[in-house]
Amino acid sequence: MLVVQKYGGSSVATTEKIAAVAERVAERAKEAQMVVVVSAMGDTTDELISMAKQLCAMPDDRELDKLLATGEQASSALLAIALHNLGVKAVSLTGGQAGIITEKSAGKARILKIDCKRLKEELAAGNVVVVAGFQGITENASWADITTLGRGGSDTTAVALAAALKADACEIYTDVDGVFTADPRLEPNARKLDTISYEEMLEMAGQGARVMHSRAVELGQLYGVEILVANAFGNVPGTIIKEEDEDMEVRNPVRGIAHDMDVTRLTVVGVPDRPGIAAQIFHALAEANINVDVIVQNVSSEGRTDLSFTVADADFEKAKKAIEPVIEQLGAKGLLTDQNVAKVSIVGSGMRSSPGYADKMFSALAAEGINILSITTSEIRITCLIERDKVKRAVRALHKAFELEKV
Amino acid sequence: MLVVQKYGGSSVATTEKIAAVAERVAERAKEAQMVVVVSAMGDTTDELISMAKQLCAMPDDRELDKLLATGEQASSALLAIALHNLGVKAVSLTGGQAGIITEKSAGKARILKIDCKRLKEELAAGNVVVVAGFQGITENASWADITTLGRGGSDTTAVALAAALKADACEIYTDVDGVFTADPRLEPNARKLDTISYEEMLEMAGQGARVMHSRAVELGQLYGVEILVANAFGNVPGTIIKEEDEDMEVRNPVRGIAHDMDVTRLTVVGVPDRPGIAAQIFHALAEANINVDVIVQNVSSEGRTDLSFTVADADFEKAKKAIEPVIEQLGAKGLLTDQNVAKVSIVGSGMRSSPGYADKMFSALAAEGINILSITTSEIRITCLIERDKVKRAVRALHKAFELEKV
Repeated sequence: MLVVQKYGGSSVATTEKIAAVAERVAERAKEAQMVVVVSAMGDTTDELISMAKQLCAMPDDRELDKLLATGEQASSALLAIALHNLGVKAVSLTGGQAGIITEKSAGKARILKIDCKRLKEELAAGNVVVVAGFQGITENASWADITTLGRGGSDTTAVALAAALKADACEIYTDVDGVFTADPRLEPNARKLDTISYEEMLEMAGQGARVMHSRAVELGQLYGVEILVANAFGNVPGTIIKEEDEDMEVRNPVRGIAHDMDVTRLTVVGVPDRPGIAAQIFHALAEANINVDVIVQNVSSEGRTDLSFTVADADFEKAKKAIEPVIEQLGAKGLLTDQNVAKVSIVGSGMRSSPGYADKMFSALAAEGINILSITTSEIRITCLIERDKVKRAVRALHKAFELEKV
Repeated sequence: MLVVQKYGGSSVATTEKIAAVAERVAERAKEAQMVVVVSAMGDTTDELISMAKQLCAMPDDRELDKLLATGEQASSALLAIALHNLGVKAVSLTGGQAGIITEKSAGKARILKIDCKRLKEELAAGNVVVVAGFQGITENASWADITTLGRGGSDTTAVALAAALKADACEIYTDVDGVFTADPRLEPNARKLDTISYEEMLEMAGQGARVMHSRAVELGQLYGVEILVANAFGNVPGTIIKEEDEDMEVRNPVRGIAHDMDVTRLTVVGVPDRPGIAAQIFHALAEANINVDVIVQNVSSEGRTDLSFTVADADFEKAKKAIEPVIEQLGAKGLLTDQNVAKVSIVGSGMRSSPGYADKMFSALAAEGINILSITTSEIRITCLIERDKVKRAVRALHKAFELEKV
């Protein structure tokens, strides 16, 4: 039996918590081989980013990766030390030592392959293997550059290792009890889900549910890794992310409400309405490795149109820098930006086969007097862009309208 | 022109200081190729050690190395980022990326070789190369283990790189103005020396002068690297460590007073007085990689003797653990330990050819009512073990007796 566990930053925020995680791992290690992936302690990553930004407004990706990777290198060594204290054989590995080879693209590097040789050797030697999450290297050499997998990358590390090692279980431990019908901090009636499909989880995560990183869920779906998300220190069963099954048919077609405040809207004003213009703008953003969402192109007037889209707040400066030359080149009239926006979404695979959800969603928001700025949809999701300060009311209204408090 | 500089922890303790170091480096980089070695920020290393010890009284060497190496990895990335902000091309390298290959022995690993390939490539590409001090790896592979060179290891990194790259200058920047005739915090009349020989510096460093690490000086001597020690932010010329020259003949034969409070005395009581006993004890300590100093064996009585020696405070627990089985095996009566001790030394290559220094030293201490617990000497040094709380008085008395306030 081989188990991959991951503990998030809040679960290893202090030496006391690391010691408590060690106790849990030691207990489990009595019956299973263990690979344990850890995030950096508490707010370490944010503190390191803040130091880098004090030194340079736009720190170089390569150097930032090298800087941030220290957080997980440190926490993984500390957990190994805590396991030794309990008499458990353990060894910590950096992403590179664990054989996680990534592409060069810094900041959000994708995993190219995992060379499991050393991992397997350390497991065979009877070690609990503690792996620094969130990081990899560019090639199998000591001079290879250190890369990071982007925010939430430790989840990706855990699922990728579970897939590569064909682990029997993949368990993501965090500071929440599982996946909820809505953020319990905004909606006290939110309910924990026992299971959720990969697709639903992807939509929830993509629209702001912070419990699990999208890339990790995608990877789980791709390799058929069932992922348990649970509270590191609770005794509740958590939520299992897996393939959709028949049971899901009889459930509430809407599974949850996601919201995302980490949104900035950019509007390119007065774009000449010619074919290929949008492609040029989004090509520049893709080149800069920026995720774009809620794209809306207005009806054209006098041969010109407005094109708006959203990016994560953290990508705002980078996005601006990436498209400014394109705007000039296109002869557009300018760029408007708005940080007072947020996304609220309803998600559920049951929506695929039944109509009427959009109507119900818009009516519920309208009844609360909440104005919809733009709308995007997928097969199993409807997302509205609204004003940021109305998010809490919107989440509660939707949770009630779709009767999510009921099992 | 190729310059290797090293900035200590106090010189990079905050982002403001890192920015100031970047200014200095940028200025120098206008006229020279630069390799800049950095220590961890401020007290980072101590804080990491403290966390490890909260988790386990005797943290594993391999994991501790991996933990501590993060400090320099972070500061080197931050300095590179600060250099970019000034428009200077720069790249940071870990010890491993810089090709510093060490033996496996963790905690105080010795450098086996330096593979300068990547360093030279980065220099040729016009980069200031910022190297994480204090660390290396065990082999040229991504899964190689991370090692550290022991306290003061960043000095060693700088001198080793200067030797390997045949640099034109090696400059160690710290928070003091250079090498003094005594610690100015204890003796306000202490004078900065313009030059000091490798041998004298070795004796000073070995006996507690914290300004420069012994191994770095040895390496400098071995490869003929002249080392400048100077204040990172001062405008004073510093002290040059180099081969002894003729001028030194006419100087005060005593060059300085060193003191060391970081001393614990261990006494193995009632050791059977047979040949080979001392060897057994010190073999165990050598195996555990512990430096031993001020060894004294008492006159034997009734076939038994007492054997005492000193170790650094940090090595105390390890030393105890290493020799306890030997003590049992030898049938010795027990182990006494004393942390209320310190060493005070006079150092000077002029002492080699002239007698009378021991007499003068002991008399000066006696006149102050300071009891000498044990004595050791080298050709150019005399060290007395005294009670720790008498160190300041001892340093001042000796500084005066040997007229070190005079040029």
